[in-house]
Amino acid sequence: MKTYASFSKQEMLDELLRVKSLYREYGDLHLSLDLTRGKPSPEQLDLSNGLLCPDLDDGFLLDGVDVRNYGVLGGLPSTRKLFADILQVKPDNIFVGGNASLQLMYDLIAKAYTHGLKNSKRPWSQEKTIKFLCPSPGYDRHFHLSLSFNMELIPVALEKDGPNMEQIRELVAAPSVKGIWCVPKFSNPEGITYSEAVCLELARLRPAAPDFALMWDNAYCIHSVFEDESIPNILELCRENGNEDMPYMFMSTSKVTFAGNGIAVFASSEGNVDYIKRLTGYQTIGYSKVNEYLHVKFLKDRENAVKHMQKHAAILRPKFEAVLSRLEKEIAPLDIAHWSKPNGGYFISFYAMPHTAARIVELCNKVGLKLTPAGATYPYNTDPYDSNIRIAPSYPSLKDVELATDVLCVCIRYATLEKLLS
Amino acid sequence: MKTYASFSKQEMLDELLRVKSLYREYGDLHLSLDLTRGKPSPEQLDLSNGLLCPDLDDGFLLDGVDVRNYGVLGGLPSTRKLFADILQVKPDNIFVGGNASLQLMYDLIAKAYTHGLKNSKRPWSQEKTIKFLCPSPGYDRHFHLSLSFNMELIPVALEKDGPNMEQIRELVAAPSVKGIWCVPKFSNPEGITYSEAVCLELARLRPAAPDFALMWDNAYCIHSVFEDESIPNILELCRENGNEDMPYMFMSTSKVTFAGNGIAVFASSEGNVDYIKRLTGYQTIGYSKVNEYLHVKFLKDRENAVKHMQKHAAILRPKFEAVLSRLEKEIAPLDIAHWSKPNGGYFISFYAMPHTAARIVELCNKVGLKLTPAGATYPYNTDPYDSNIRIAPSYPSLKDVELATDVLCVCIRYATLEKLLS
Repeated sequence: MKTYASFSKQEMLDELLRVKSLYREYGDLHLSLDLTRGKPSPEQLDLSNGLLCPDLDDGFLLDGVDVRNYGVLGGLPSTRKLFADILQVKPDNIFVGGNASLQLMYDLIAKAYTHGLKNSKRPWSQEKTIKFLCPSPGYDRHFHLSLSFNMELIPVALEKDGPNMEQIRELVAAPSVKGIWCVPKFSNPEGITYSEAVCLELARLRPAAPDFALMWDNAYCIHSVFEDESIPNILELCRENGNEDMPYMFMSTSKVTFAGNGIAVFASSEGNVDYIKRLTGYQTIGYSKVNEYLHVKFLKDRENAVKHMQKHAAILRPKFEAVLSRLEKEIAPLDIAHWSKPNGGYFISFYAMPHTAARIVELCNKVGLKLTPAGATYPYNTDPYDSNIRIAPSYPSLKDVELATDVLCVCIRYATLEKLLS
Repeated sequence: MKTYASFSKQEMLDELLRVKSLYREYGDLHLSLDLTRGKPSPEQLDLSNGLLCPDLDDGFLLDGVDVRNYGVLGGLPSTRKLFADILQVKPDNIFVGGNASLQLMYDLIAKAYTHGLKNSKRPWSQEKTIKFLCPSPGYDRHFHLSLSFNMELIPVALEKDGPNMEQIRELVAAPSVKGIWCVPKFSNPEGITYSEAVCLELARLRPAAPDFALMWDNAYCIHSVFEDESIPNILELCRENGNEDMPYMFMSTSKVTFAGNGIAVFASSEGNVDYIKRLTGYQTIGYSKVNEYLHVKFLKDRENAVKHMQKHAAILRPKFEAVLSRLEKEIAPLDIAHWSKPNGGYFISFYAMPHTAARIVELCNKVGLKLTPAGATYPYNTDPYDSNIRIAPSYPSLKDVELATDVLCVCIRYATLEKLLS
């Protein structure tokens, strides 16, 4: 196989004819495939069916508390211990709340606006401008959350070992820069893990804003698919470097047990946990302790949780392999694109030839393959190169992932040839 | 038995000696009793143990949706139908979210501050002053929620048929008055139900603020203990009177199934529901659909839910009777106090001789009976007469309620005699 760059114009035209004919064949199949969102598959969800219907011999008591009644905000001792173990922090650093970590992130930002964070001089609603750093490509919901508060988003290059620290150090000198969105492990969508050096540099930042928030979305902390990767304990690193109140680490069990019916937690300094707990005391009498109880009984401890995640990995692995092997076979020899080969998380990040991503997504949609819109992984939905496509292979069946990737490969070739011929 | 008013000074002194001796006897018992919060008892919670462990033949499908996975914000069709039936509104008026109605109320107010409500000219955080009307005595958590946003609370007299409408009509002429807290049925702590006339007058209000929020906390909508009482459909009344976007009705199943693990909903105009749903889309991918599924399977429909509530009533009734019969026998003849005789809800509201409530609570605490702090039912914790005490008989066992009321009666006599002799 020759690379497209070495094709003559006539060879390209001939190839486009072949590709169009393949594309039409897929069109005739009236497919309905979806590689858009990082959702667990039904098989993965089945792994946690035992979550409901626990052995009820203990009469709904956890730590001596009847979990069916009111009270205990921020997590029962056993729940805080379980998540402290999973995140490798201390139980006093843990705040347990709600069914989704996105909600905890939103509520933290909302409280920053209405009341201010612990070290804020005034509520963010009383500031003229709030800016947030966005390592990109990144998680679209982080960006949309920020935009919903009219924040100004500042893209920062995300490199193989984490965000570009030179850029960040310069940017945090402005007091209007109030935080940064990080997915430090198996990042969404790149699948990269921040290096120790980058984590240390983040911990050593000296932001002008005293209430600068290091939003550390540890969504994939125990979510390896191939090999595990490790990140330093950011709470400890920041404390050692005089930034104890800077990091807020988030996780949930949405991709461990049931999506949207998990336990969400954040870990931060004891001071931050106390401060947020006090404010949350006006918001709720408590989150669902029944769900805490079910999760503590089901997941037990870190070791057991990690073992449970290996069952997820066994289901996810062939799907990742199906995408990667097809890209390797169909696209790599043409030398027209590159993509991530992540060890964990939920995504493969694909970089098409510049200015073809939107067209590839359009071509896929037309024959019944839904993809995350091109640009969605960038602030303001704007990929400067129109190149990145996020591939989420977790939800469809293996057969559908295979077929979907075949379709995708044809659409990549189609759009690339169009571009080369234009 | 003579009334205290007809006692001579010497008779009062003799009576105080007798009462002090009774009080000491209770002190010797080293009691640990609690009439503070409106919590369901373990027996009531047992009524819903079947909530977990449902028949799983349907493979976790509700309305064709796998409730274990992400998606569907604001409630599945079956959940919205169930709560529309219970609240006697339309499913399109229902927003299902979270485990606690307090959180929905908080989130609504928080969004008013950060983004504004549907008809706001600007976010409330950009207004100089926000005032809220507080029919009093009322629910302490409503008042504290408002105070946490630095609102100015304006007490409004709560009468037998609802809040004083003359006061309210005058107050809403100020554009800074942005809302009112109402518990329209079996109100906390009075146990009164708003009359049709009051509801109509509320619906006909012409507040200066275009985004005035009628916070309609229908916490006790199906929570009769003796006889049911009915309120008009406030959504309909408001719509008919040109105030479609004014009311936000709240309820949860915290006192139907499990406290803090219920389903919380609000009902409002379709426009408001759409507006809040759009903003909530940045906050969460969805609330727990597993809990929706469990509740829909368990409660089934309004009729079945009401039947379930009759089992609660059967447990609550003897406890209310124990308090009421003791007050009737021990306190009524002395003509020193009055109290509510509610048909439902969770509280008995007791009015001691002015300027004795705090002392009564203090005396009770000293011999091991915890009561809600005097004044807690008023804005700023300030009961102008230091008279109101909220009695919550639901949680302790019947025997404990009986003993606690005996203690309370002695403390009432003690504090009243002290006051009369002072």
